[in-house]
Amino acid sequence: MSFSDIQTPALILDISKVKSNISRMTSHIKSLGVDLRPHLKTSKSIDVARLAVTGNFGGITVSTLREAEYFAERGFVDITLAVCLVPSKLDRAAALTARGVNLKILIDHPTLARALAEHSGDHQVLIEIDCGEHRTGLAWQAPELLEIARLLDGAANVQCAGVLTHAGHSYGCRSAGEMTALAEIERTAVVGAAGRLREIGITSSIVSVGSTPTAVFASDLTGVTEARPGVYMFGDLFQAGIGSCGIDDVALSVLSTVIAHQEKQNILVIDAGGLALSKDRSTQSLAHDCGYGLVCSAHSGKPFPGWTVGAVHQEHGQIISQNPIDFSNHPIGSQVRILPNHVCMTAAAHEQYHVIDGSDPHAPMEMWPRCNGW
Amino acid sequence: MSFSDIQTPALILDISKVKSNISRMTSHIKSLGVDLRPHLKTSKSIDVARLAVTGNFGGITVSTLREAEYFAERGFVDITLAVCLVPSKLDRAAALTARGVNLKILIDHPTLARALAEHSGDHQVLIEIDCGEHRTGLAWQAPELLEIARLLDGAANVQCAGVLTHAGHSYGCRSAGEMTALAEIERTAVVGAAGRLREIGITSSIVSVGSTPTAVFASDLTGVTEARPGVYMFGDLFQAGIGSCGIDDVALSVLSTVIAHQEKQNILVIDAGGLALSKDRSTQSLAHDCGYGLVCSAHSGKPFPGWTVGAVHQEHGQIISQNPIDFSNHPIGSQVRILPNHVCMTAAAHEQYHVIDGSDPHAPMEMWPRCNGW
Repeated sequence: MSFSDIQTPALILDISKVKSNISRMTSHIKSLGVDLRPHLKTSKSIDVARLAVTGNFGGITVSTLREAEYFAERGFVDITLAVCLVPSKLDRAAALTARGVNLKILIDHPTLARALAEHSGDHQVLIEIDCGEHRTGLAWQAPELLEIARLLDGAANVQCAGVLTHAGHSYGCRSAGEMTALAEIERTAVVGAAGRLREIGITSSIVSVGSTPTAVFASDLTGVTEARPGVYMFGDLFQAGIGSCGIDDVALSVLSTVIAHQEKQNILVIDAGGLALSKDRSTQSLAHDCGYGLVCSAHSGKPFPGWTVGAVHQEHGQIISQNPIDFSNHPIGSQVRILPNHVCMTAAAHEQYHVIDGSDPHAPMEMWPRCNGW
Repeated sequence: MSFSDIQTPALILDISKVKSNISRMTSHIKSLGVDLRPHLKTSKSIDVARLAVTGNFGGITVSTLREAEYFAERGFVDITLAVCLVPSKLDRAAALTARGVNLKILIDHPTLARALAEHSGDHQVLIEIDCGEHRTGLAWQAPELLEIARLLDGAANVQCAGVLTHAGHSYGCRSAGEMTALAEIERTAVVGAAGRLREIGITSSIVSVGSTPTAVFASDLTGVTEARPGVYMFGDLFQAGIGSCGIDDVALSVLSTVIAHQEKQNILVIDAGGLALSKDRSTQSLAHDCGYGLVCSAHSGKPFPGWTVGAVHQEHGQIISQNPIDFSNHPIGSQVRILPNHVCMTAAAHEQYHVIDGSDPHAPMEMWPRCNGW
C-alpha cells in the first residue's frame, strides 16, 4: 500500500519518530530517577502503548474508562485513570479491579471519598493535587486533603495509593526556564501533599506528576515516583511552538487530497476540514500561528514554507500561502500532509493510523486501530 | 433508561424538536415550489434520515463517501455527494452506481471531467457553481462551465445531471434581510449556470441550492429544483445566533456530569471537554459569545442564564458564570446538558444518540447510531 491507495483524509503515523520521541522521554525520566507512566490519551492505541512502555515498568495512564477497559482487555494490568471519577462510573472501575487490573482512580473531594467507601467494589485511589492550574484537585495545603485521606484509609474496600498532580498550565509557558520552574512547582505540590499524608501515617506509594512540557524540562524530581506525559510520543505544532519538541519530531500528520483550485484567491482546497483536523486553534496564542495546521509535502513530510490551512469547513480545508501557489505543482488529485496544532484532538477524529517508517515511506503499511469514545 | 443510567459525556437528541424542525423546513421549501433534499452530514443517522425525507421525494445529500455507502446499504437510492470528488475515489462512487444507487457526484474542474470520461465506471455528475463563497465551484459565467459540460456530455459513461451551489457565506450574514438577499444571489448563480448549459443543449434536471440560513430565508426559488439544507434538523447556537432557528429549537445537547468544584474560581468542572464538545468557537463572532457551549438543566434542557463552558481540556470542561454559582445545587455527580456551538462538529465526536421525546424525558430511550469517518 502506498499513499495513493489511501482514502483521504487519513492519519499517517511515522513510527521512527514515535520511537525516537519515546526513547528520548524514557531516558530523560529515568535519568531523573523516577518511573515513566506514559499517558495514552493521545494515541489511544495498543500498538503505541506497547512501544511506550518499552524500557519502563509497564504502567500506563489513561483519560477515559473506555481506554482503561480497552488496554486492560489487551493485557495491561497497571493503569491510572487521571480524570476525577464520579459515582455513576464506579461500577465500571470496580469491574476492572475485580478482574485483576491494578486500576487507580482519581478523586479530589470528600463527597467522592464517601461514595467510594459506600460502594460495593474495591478501589485504589489517588488524591488529585492542584499545583496551580485550578482545573481539578486540591491545594496540597488544603484541610480537605487529610479529610479525604482519612476517609479512604478508614474504608475497608479502598486503598489510598498516593497523590497525583498535573501542571496543565505548562501550556502557558513560553520558555524553557518557565517550564523548568513550573516543573519544580509541580514537584513541590505533590511532594508536599505526600508529606502531609505521611504525617498522619499514610504512605503514598505513588507520587505522580504530569504534562509533557514539565516532563521535558524537569531538572529534579526528588520525592516523585513517576511522571505521566503523553503528547511527547507524537508531538504537535503547539508543543513545537513552546519548545517541548521540534517540528521534525511531529510524528502524526493528516494525509489529504487536493480537491479544487481557487487560483484567483491563491487557495488550494483539500478534503481535510474541521472534522479531519479538528478546530483546535491553540497555536493562535504563539509567536507562529499555524492556522488549522502546517502543510507538508505528502512524501517527504516536510513543511512548505509559509503554507497553512487558513480556514476549514466540515469537509473542506483551505490552504493559504504568503507567496503565489504554483497550482501546476499541486494538481487536483495530488496529496499533501497536514501537521496538527493539537495532536490529541486531531487523532481523535479518526479510527486508525496508517503507520509508515520515515526511512521508507513506500514500505508496506500497518493499520493500527484507535479506541475513541467513552 | 433515565439520564442517571447514561455514561457521560453522551449525546441527547430531543426527537420532538427534530420532528418540528424538519416539518417546518419541509413546509417552507414546499411552499416555494421546490424539492427538499435534506443534507445528512449533521446527523449521519439512518433514523434521522427517515424522518428527514418524510413528506419529501426521498432524495438525500451527504458529505462523504462513507455516508453515501451507509445510507445506500440502508435503502436510500437517490443520493447527492456534495463535496468535489477526486480520481482516487471514483471506484467507490462507481460501485454504488453499479448496484443501482442514483448517486450524483460533484466536480468543478475540466481535469475531473476528463478523469470521469476515462474512468471505467458510470457516473452522474453535477457541476459545482461558486455563488460567492469562493470555497469550491466555478463562477456561473466562467468559460470552463461549458468546457466541463461538453466533456461530460461527450462521454458515454457520464451523464451531466445539472448544477449545484452552496451559499456557505450565509454564515457571515447577521440579519434576515441579508440572508434573503444572499438566497437570491445563490438562486441567480445556479439558475444562470443552468441557463448557459441549456443554450448548448444540455438540460439540468437538477438545479440545486444549499445552506440552512438561505433555505430558511429564501422568498423565491424560481428556476431551482431542490434545496439541500442540513443543520436545521438539529439547530445549534450559531444558527440561533444568526436567527435561522431559536434556542428552543436546538435538538441536540451533550449530557455531562459535574466531576469537580473549584469554588474559589466560581467554576464547575464537567466531564465534557474538547473531545465531547469540539473546539468550535463559531459563536465568538456573534453578539452573544457562548464559549464552548451553553449550560442547561439536564432535565428541562433550559439554559441557566449566563452560564457557559468557558474553557475546555481534552476531557474536562469548565463552566463559568457571571453570577456566583450555588455549588450545593450542583453537587459532584449531578448532571447538566450543554448546547453546542456547531452541532455538526459536536455530534461527530460521538458514536450514537440517546433519543428522548421532549414531552417525556423519562420514557424509554432509543439509541440511534451514527456513521462517522470517511
